[in-house]
Amino acid sequence: MRQSHHTFRVDTNGSGFYEITRPVAAWVRAQNMSAGLLTLFCRHTSASLLIQENADPSVLRDLEAVFARFAPEGAGLYEHDSEGPDDMPSHIRAALTQTNLSIPLFGGALALGTWQGVYLFEHRTRPHRREVAAHLLGE
Amino acid sequence: MRQSHHTFRVDTNGSGFYEITRPVAAWVRAQNMSAGLLTLFCRHTSASLLIQENADPSVLRDLEAVFARFAPEGAGLYEHDSEGPDDMPSHIRAALTQTNLSIPLFGGALALGTWQGVYLFEHRTRPHRREVAAHLLGE
Amino acid sequence: MRQSHHTFRVDTNGSGFYEITRPVAAWVRAQNMSAGLLTLFCRHTSASLLIQENADPSVLRDLEAVFARFAPEGAGLYEHDSEGPDDMPSHIRAALTQTNLSIPLFGGALALGTWQGVYLFEHRTRPHRREVAAHLLGE
Repeated sequence: MRQSHHTFRVDTNGSGFYEITRPVAAWVRAQNMSAGLLTLFCRHTSASLLIQENADPSVLRDLEAVFARFAPEGAGLYEHDSEGPDDMPSHIRAALTQTNLSIPLFGGALALGTWQGVYLFEHRTRPHRREVAAHLLGE
Repeated sequence: MRQSHHTFRVDTNGSGFYEITRPVAAWVRAQNMSAGLLTLFCRHTSASLLIQENADPSVLRDLEAVFARFAPEGAGLYEHDSEGPDDMPSHIRAALTQTNLSIPLFGGALALGTWQGVYLFEHRTRPHRREVAAHLLGE
Repeated sequence: MRQSHHTFRVDTNGSGFYEITRPVAAWVRAQNMSAGLLTLFCRHTSASLLIQENADPSVLRDLEAVFARFAPEGAGLYEHDSEGPDDMPSHIRAALTQTNLSIPLFGGALALGTWQGVYLFEHRTRPHRREVAAHLLGE
């Protein structure tokens, strides 16, 4: 049994979904393990992680619209507003989704279903450089 | 240290909670480890996982009703509607809950609290065959 | 590769956020591992875990207010009401947040971002003694 780690950098340009399935799967393959456990960890509180449908991009657009309603922007809605109108909604969206994901590795491949993609879910309006820490344990 | 993996199949018959605590705990016991880490991973984007109260089934009925309000069905509510009125609400419900769960194993037993059960949370109306990948690491 | 486990006790006194970053990081350091994976697991269904901003406490007050709106208390709102008006809202708040967290350990330190704190999110009004099971795997 051994472990590997890596930090993925994701440049975002406005709120929404940024797929990271391909670089993550490539890194996992390069570790040359047949079975194990992958953990992804988002090092931010105004961006998060989500596994969602990778086939029809309208799913992601609908999700973005729904989260904008769950966590609306608006003057006077929040006590914490010093970092801009999208700041507190970002924390709410992050609280409702995931900071970390765990995906088993079987037979040399991640156990993702056919329609599952791994996404960084950006909540801020302005461009950000995000870090996703990856940890793989296996053999 | 060693690892085991397995895929649980769960046949669902409409949206709601399907308890999987017993088969999961039985499989874990059969791996004969005293300490470790269990990971469960739902291989779908229109079903998810949740740990919730296992005592009073009215909790699960209330949760089902609440999630139906968080993610309502309705003509014109979503851009993505080609797979039926329950499709986009399913993705929203999955985004708000968990794709994966991690449960430590101590003293030969999962660290679940007395009132905690492990559930597959089905979001689609029609029957589905669901897969939950399980990974156990320990000794 | 080896593993350690521990149970953290957190005494709560009303709903809201209780930071546990410091005792968790201290316990991890005491295990003397340079790389690995930490799992935290909340053994309750009316309290949960969340990673959120540790800098401005107004973020946590806003989150508490937002979750009170997502899961309101009120006569007749829920079928499950025998344990008090804050009981079913607690289960909803737990379902929307996390029962478990996974945090990689690199270079002897948890991969938490600068502004990330680990919180027990209490959902009940009356005082409770909560248990968070911790599992660390690494070397």
